[in-house]
Amino acid sequence: MTSPLSVENRRKLHAVSTATLTTVLFKRGLRNVFLQGPRRLNPGRTMVGEAFTLRYIPAREDIDRMEVFRDPEHPQRKGIESCPAGHVMVIDARGDASAASAGAILIARLMMRGAAGIVTDGGFRDSPEAATLDFPVYHVRPSAPTNLIHHHAADLQVPIACGRVPVYPGDIVVGDDEGVVVIPAHLADEVAEEAHEMTVYEDFVTERVLAGHTIVGLYPPTDQSNLAAFAAWRAERGR
Amino acid sequence: MTSPLSVENRRKLHAVSTATLTTVLFKRGLRNVFLQGPRRLNPGRTMVGEAFTLRYIPAREDIDRMEVFRDPEHPQRKGIESCPAGHVMVIDARGDASAASAGAILIARLMMRGAAGIVTDGGFRDSPEAATLDFPVYHVRPSAPTNLIHHHAADLQVPIACGRVPVYPGDIVVGDDEGVVVIPAHLADEVAEEAHEMTVYEDFVTERVLAGHTIVGLYPPTDQSNLAAFAAWRAERGR
Amino acid sequence: MTSPLSVENRRKLHAVSTATLTTVLFKRGLRNVFLQGPRRLNPGRTMVGEAFTLRYIPAREDIDRMEVFRDPEHPQRKGIESCPAGHVMVIDARGDASAASAGAILIARLMMRGAAGIVTDGGFRDSPEAATLDFPVYHVRPSAPTNLIHHHAADLQVPIACGRVPVYPGDIVVGDDEGVVVIPAHLADEVAEEAHEMTVYEDFVTERVLAGHTIVGLYPPTDQSNLAAFAAWRAERGR
Amino acid sequence: MTSPLSVENRRKLHAVSTATLTTVLFKRGLRNVFLQGPRRLNPGRTMVGEAFTLRYIPAREDIDRMEVFRDPEHPQRKGIESCPAGHVMVIDARGDASAASAGAILIARLMMRGAAGIVTDGGFRDSPEAATLDFPVYHVRPSAPTNLIHHHAADLQVPIACGRVPVYPGDIVVGDDEGVVVIPAHLADEVAEEAHEMTVYEDFVTERVLAGHTIVGLYPPTDQSNLAAFAAWRAERGR
Amino acid sequence: MTSPLSVENRRKLHAVSTATLTTVLFKRGLRNVFLQGPRRLNPGRTMVGEAFTLRYIPAREDIDRMEVFRDPEHPQRKGIESCPAGHVMVIDARGDASAASAGAILIARLMMRGAAGIVTDGGFRDSPEAATLDFPVYHVRPSAPTNLIHHHAADLQVPIACGRVPVYPGDIVVGDDEGVVVIPAHLADEVAEEAHEMTVYEDFVTERVLAGHTIVGLYPPTDQSNLAAFAAWRAERGR
Amino acid sequence: MTSPLSVENRRKLHAVSTATLTTVLFKRGLRNVFLQGPRRLNPGRTMVGEAFTLRYIPAREDIDRMEVFRDPEHPQRKGIESCPAGHVMVIDARGDASAASAGAILIARLMMRGAAGIVTDGGFRDSPEAATLDFPVYHVRPSAPTNLIHHHAADLQVPIACGRVPVYPGDIVVGDDEGVVVIPAHLADEVAEEAHEMTVYEDFVTERVLAGHTIVGLYPPTDQSNLAAFAAWRAERGR
Repeated sequence: MTSPLSVENRRKLHAVSTATLTTVLFKRGLRNVFLQGPRRLNPGRTMVGEAFTLRYIPAREDIDRMEVFRDPEHPQRKGIESCPAGHVMVIDARGDASAASAGAILIARLMMRGAAGIVTDGGFRDSPEAATLDFPVYHVRPSAPTNLIHHHAADLQVPIACGRVPVYPGDIVVGDDEGVVVIPAHLADEVAEEAHEMTVYEDFVTERVLAGHTIVGLYPPTDQSNLAAFAAWRAERGR
Repeated sequence: MTSPLSVENRRKLHAVSTATLTTVLFKRGLRNVFLQGPRRLNPGRTMVGEAFTLRYIPAREDIDRMEVFRDPEHPQRKGIESCPAGHVMVIDARGDASAASAGAILIARLMMRGAAGIVTDGGFRDSPEAATLDFPVYHVRPSAPTNLIHHHAADLQVPIACGRVPVYPGDIVVGDDEGVVVIPAHLADEVAEEAHEMTVYEDFVTERVLAGHTIVGLYPPTDQSNLAAFAAWRAERGR
Repeated sequence: MTSPLSVENRRKLHAVSTATLTTVLFKRGLRNVFLQGPRRLNPGRTMVGEAFTLRYIPAREDIDRMEVFRDPEHPQRKGIESCPAGHVMVIDARGDASAASAGAILIARLMMRGAAGIVTDGGFRDSPEAATLDFPVYHVRPSAPTNLIHHHAADLQVPIACGRVPVYPGDIVVGDDEGVVVIPAHLADEVAEEAHEMTVYEDFVTERVLAGHTIVGLYPPTDQSNLAAFAAWRAERGR
Repeated sequence: MTSPLSVENRRKLHAVSTATLTTVLFKRGLRNVFLQGPRRLNPGRTMVGEAFTLRYIPAREDIDRMEVFRDPEHPQRKGIESCPAGHVMVIDARGDASAASAGAILIARLMMRGAAGIVTDGGFRDSPEAATLDFPVYHVRPSAPTNLIHHHAADLQVPIACGRVPVYPGDIVVGDDEGVVVIPAHLADEVAEEAHEMTVYEDFVTERVLAGHTIVGLYPPTDQSNLAAFAAWRAERGR
Repeated sequence: MTSPLSVENRRKLHAVSTATLTTVLFKRGLRNVFLQGPRRLNPGRTMVGEAFTLRYIPAREDIDRMEVFRDPEHPQRKGIESCPAGHVMVIDARGDASAASAGAILIARLMMRGAAGIVTDGGFRDSPEAATLDFPVYHVRPSAPTNLIHHHAADLQVPIACGRVPVYPGDIVVGDDEGVVVIPAHLADEVAEEAHEMTVYEDFVTERVLAGHTIVGLYPPTDQSNLAAFAAWRAERGR
Repeated sequence: MTSPLSVENRRKLHAVSTATLTTVLFKRGLRNVFLQGPRRLNPGRTMVGEAFTLRYIPAREDIDRMEVFRDPEHPQRKGIESCPAGHVMVIDARGDASAASAGAILIARLMMRGAAGIVTDGGFRDSPEAATLDFPVYHVRPSAPTNLIHHHAADLQVPIACGRVPVYPGDIVVGDDEGVVVIPAHLADEVAEEAHEMTVYEDFVTERVLAGHTIVGLYPPTDQSNLAAFAAWRAERGR
């Protein structure tokens, strides 16, 4: 599997915000890219990786019994053991946090296998333990009830909904302390580059604003003198 | 594809209510079988048929454009043209009725092809026209916006959620003027039989109650004299 | 049990709307008297009667089994068999219509026993049959799943919430094709009288408006000439 | 005030569906034009007219007292008496149907003054009476509580939200038995024309489908022979 | 009142997670034991105690006036002064956090009286102050409005709903930083013991997983060698 | 613009809680003064200031394009540059946090211009950065998507809804770590004074309760001896 993202651009994505990414994608006509609901359990380093998807449907009492986890081919367990390093496991839990999408043991295993993070539009259990891991975890709210009470793992690596956003396997998933954005794979490189440029300018703007400058003419830069000042500022910092 | 249901039991299911079916399934430990949300657009004859599933995820602006419907392999269009006679098309619209799951033309085509009905946990457009068809249609509420605005047809014949209930291809879907129940395929015959028996008894009870009889001892029949009376009543009517 | 309502005022309440009652109660500082959610299953004659309350809590699997209905002291069954004639059974279902509050057989029994109506902020099952009864029935939406799946009948005749409104046993419950209003018992007589008066005036206003009259000065009657015209109109009709 | 719509195109809009209009607007990049929530209280003739807006905010107990309606300048009452003939009153009730947006007397007055209809994303009171008027009325659900309990009429003829859709004064509001669509004024004529053309084709498609024709190649018309058949069909009918 | 729980098992419950408890209860057929909504205001030590229940219904303006708190028999105030030491006050606020269930002064009094904690499915006021108490407090969100605005304390020690879960007086309520679980009294001892055993095994699993071990065969332990390793691990630690 | 609030009373409001303010306003018949939803992004010093309002309606794709921000008269940008020092910007986002109400750059500019705080019933973007500012910020949840995706800034300084509460320009907005209360301008002084008095008494009560005193007779003070003790306590502390 080749990545839709160059090493350089992956690095750039680690240094831009999800807010900036929504603007860059909006300019390309994409309005629905930020997961509605999931938030970072354990604020920290940015998450960037290809989407590896897991789909849940509602549980059925005669199918979803404790015994199913004894089967290594059970999609939830198989997903944890097969998600490639550098990828983000994204779970379609139908926005249902009334039972857990997974718990701290599975999340720890995913971390140990080198995944880049895990996201659900439901909730994780053992959330206090999961919060202590150095691993990006996003969910809607803590949910102690064991997975099988309301979820059935249906399949892996199909297009899904998560937080009301479409997620295709291989899309680039970026998460910061604000939330999670999904970038269509074919746009990943150009979005990373434009977001990087925008971030440099916004750092300049922030510095100006905190020094007392008006936003008029500066944000957006309708006044040419601001663009000149920016060019100088940027050159000075070698960005 | 052989049906999980005998001809005789299919006939029986046409004459029982969804309410009775939930009781029969509850006795087998199944609590989540009635679709929450979808209601009958056009009250009328009972719907019985195997589930034929269609799954939607949220639309993405660069993928879901008007042109996609020109492709006969588009899952929504292909589903309409391939759903077997006697089956019920069940759509997982993620409970989202803000754009249409389908419209009157597709529903009419499905009817003409011999399907048994159509169900979504979203909404249909052209609902006033669809309501005039002699064909069971269930949705949550009318929804004029064209499908592509919020939905992307992802695949056919996979297990789905509809109205927060799991639906597997081939399950038996029964609908009356109250709503829709999904019967796991492997239970279809026994459930049909037990529901039929229960219906006969409840017809007897209703007649008694409307004649002024107390429900105590009658419903449920804890008083043996009621069972004797029922036996006589049933014999008399040849049921 | 003596009624908080005179025979004459009970008659008056049968001829006023729930809309008018909310205005009369608002003038007395009561803003939360209209049940939010429940609607009439079977439009028809007005419902007026004292509240007889039944309270549900969520079901628990080890307690709420089919066998409980064999006990004539089960609060749901006991309520049906003990609700006084002329009273309205009001059920606190916590706004949860995912399982039935009751079904057509129990509703028919309640009707035969002379009750004035039944109201839940959940849903009833067998709703197509219940809709054929000449008996006022209010619920939020049809709900086929058998009661025990999500409800446990906890007790009778305690103060409850229904449709986010407080209901005390003995309050006067009035329902029309718009919905249900609860009148505190101690206000029932005065509210009935004022609502009757207001209704006569509004009938006059409606007639005027449909004849092309402006509402300015008429509704409310800030122009004295309208009050004079009303007096004449009323005298003429002997109201 | 000159209309954004020619007489001919107003006529055409009376004969197209809201579903078709959403498709025509989607082709122009407008995805959010169908009011989410409001439904027709009294199915019947199509509604077409310019938007005349009324905005509510939540009530405040010390301001919103019964006396306010004595003031003919109160925005709700003034709106009813000043909405131009042929216009549709559209009310922003913040999606709150817990108290009435208006009642049957005001609606009757609006009808008598020649308005084209009334729409709220809340609820109307006296809804059984309002339903008997030969006048298009759209709301979310019946709501008996008097307006002042939760609403304060803030102003007239400002841009508003209704059913989560932006509505600007003068936009063209079209309603059928499915719901309500808002057409930006500057697009009204071209949308009417295209929707008319699309409707003729869809009538042809419907006739074909009900005669047993597949939708493949017909809907959309990717097969040229269907376009030829359509041309003949149309010529024959003089449409 | 004798406790359903031995001293030893109460100690065990202090050292297991709510997540583990849901699994143990699920094995006994109980699926709805975790309160949906309430979260810990002030993360810290585990809460274990018998349920002492308080039930609210919606307020009524003529009953729920400031003066009611002058009555020491008012159920809210009486509950605070009579909840036994070691018990958890559990409030049924109908999931309504728009007005406070209680405030920091009452919570402090409950703490001083030796209660084990307080839980509501609404919100508490003075939440910043309450968060500083060394006392387990669970609510849905902060809610400044004074209790009487939307709540009426109806009664004490009746079965209630809290967070959509049934709670009977005397049930064992356990809370950790993830949320709250309710254990039916008659199951308390056996659940405590099984949860303790499960916790020891999961601690072993976590250690293994963080050391790089696969979950296959380990979680659940389908591979006998893992059980042998566990036995050795446990013996070594004297657990 | 003269303030409705004396300097002394503004100081007092900085030292009372929003909980206490709701009680003082409830005594005056005002029940709906606490914003439902918005919470403090960055706990810290109290916010007090006059309301400066900004109203959003839903975005329309042909109007709300990136270019609009180039116009210094755009209401959002103009509001940021014209909100008076000491005022609180309050945004009516219709409770919609699916796109941002504003971001960290605009919030920083508002802070630099001397405003007292910013509140929305939607969400802010760049929330991690905004949380680092020494400036009171209230929103419902983080929201990365750029403003124009779902919002259109319609106007400034009109009465609005925020968190389901009416907010008039010039009302006094008070925020603490619990949330935000709106005080009608004409009541600001008397409410500040009464809240101050109540706070002194509650500090006394808290001290007593934490020393083991019962709340009976103390809270509220129905026992005269408590009032005497309070008088002594207060005198001692010079409050």
